[in-house]
This record gives sequence, C-alpha cells and structure tokens, in this order.
Amino acid sequence: MEDCIFCRIASGNGKAEKIYEDDKTVSFLDIFPASQGHSLVIPKKHYRTLSDMSAEDLAATIKTVQKIGKAVAKAMDADGFNVVQSNERAAGQVVFHVHFHVIPRKEGDKLSFSWPHLREKDIDLPKSRELIKKHL
Amino acid sequence: MEDCIFCRIASGNGKAEKIYEDDKTVSFLDIFPASQGHSLVIPKKHYRTLSDMSAEDLAATIKTVQKIGKAVAKAMDADGFNVVQSNERAAGQVVFHVHFHVIPRKEGDKLSFSWPHLREKDIDLPKSRELIKKHL
Repeated sequence: MEDCIFCRIASGNGKAEKIYEDDKTVSFLDIFPASQGHSLVIPKKHYRTLSDMSAEDLAATIKTVQKIGKAVAKAMDADGFNVVQSNERAAGQVVFHVHFHVIPRKEGDKLSFSWPHLREKDIDLPKSRELIKKHL
Repeated sequence: MEDCIFCRIASGNGKAEKIYEDDKTVSFLDIFPASQGHSLVIPKKHYRTLSDMSAEDLAATIKTVQKIGKAVAKAMDADGFNVVQSNERAAGQVVFHVHFHVIPRKEGDKLSFSWPHLREKDIDLPKSRELIKKHL
C-alpha cells in the first residue's frame, strides 16, 4: 500500500508525531486536531474499514485506543475523551486505512459529538430490530 | 448495579430492543436514534468508561461492535457507519456504563461527526507528543 499515507506512517516512512508503537499498532497526533492531544490509533496492517479487520488486529487496536485515551486525558488534564471511528465516505472517512480518533475533552469546551434524534413518528424500533437480526 | 439501566438490560431485566447477545456483550437499539438502526453495544459487566475495561471485555465488545456495524449497514442499506464512544460527562456520556454507538450513515444524510480544527497558531504537535509520552 505504497499510496496509503497511514501505511507509510506505520512502516516508519511517513512523517508523523508518533506517540506509541507496538507490534500491531501505531498512535500519532492528528495534524488537524479538534483539541490539544487529539490522537489517532491505527493497525499497522492495512484495512479499509473496521468491517475488514481480523479479530486479532481489532483487539490489539482497541487496546491501544484505551491506552492512548488514558494517557492523553492525563497529559492534557482533560475531563473525558471521545473515541470516534468512521467507515466509508458517507460516514466522513477521508483516509481509507481504518483509524480511531481519540479526542480529549474538557468541561465547557465547544466540541460536540451529539446528534439530532429522529422524529418520534419515524422511529419503529421493533421493525429495525427484525431487519438487523436477519443480517446477523 | 441495580440502579444502572444498562446493567438491567444486560441481565434481561430491563426493557430494550435487543438485537444480539453473547457471553460477554449485548447489543440493542438506541431509543433516541440518530438514524434508522442506530444501535448500542455494551459489555455485560459494569464499567464506567473505556478506561476501566479489562482487556478481555474490551476485545469482546469491539468484536461485537464490528459484527453489529456490518449487520446494521446491510440491514439499513447504509453507505457506511460511525462508531462513537464517550467517556465522562465532559465528553457527552449520559449513561455511566460504557457503551459504543453504531450509527448507520447514508450519502447526503444531515448527520455530522466532524469537528472544528484548532487554529494553526494553537497547534504545537511536538509539545503535545512529549506531554503524552510522559504519561505512557
């Protein structure tokens, strides 16, 4: 994956402010941070989205997300943190190598990852449940 | 954790539109969905935040997130999905039993989990990197 910017970072050939690395994962600072300490965690192996990941790489990656979340929150004296992960362009994915955002938060900061709810009349949970169960 | 609504759902004593369950995790529909099929994934065991989770429950939970993400995207004929996970009130956490949102997305929907960037003059990546590495 010579043309993948995150593969280059994973292999040490791309420029990044790396903060952590182990056998299977790398973490580095987002160059367009939402807040001080905003970090990314990726598997070294190339996967387009979360859906494609092996169980082993998935477990290793979320373990690094946890480690980075705790460290970043302490380092930035944050009151909490968000983990955000986007799959495919419709979801806002821009780099097509799966990545987790770890975003430190402070009380009263202006960030928001909340969302508008569907209107009550448009919600039919039992119908959605049955649709999803057919695909499990 | 008798007073935890997600513990009650995990034990089968709380009302929820469950879509999946295994030894360690449960998935059910969010009652205030951002989009059709918006689901939650939780470990059965009570943890306040991601930071507190055991490696085993963390791996099991993200595996279920992957499974649900794929199923929900297919069921809802979605073009992608977001995973959002919030730790502590400052990050928007409302129920204090760790949970992952799985939110199906369609091209052109009005949802957004993007964020404003810090101003360039406020970004000092090497300084952030050193701060974080001290806490790893």
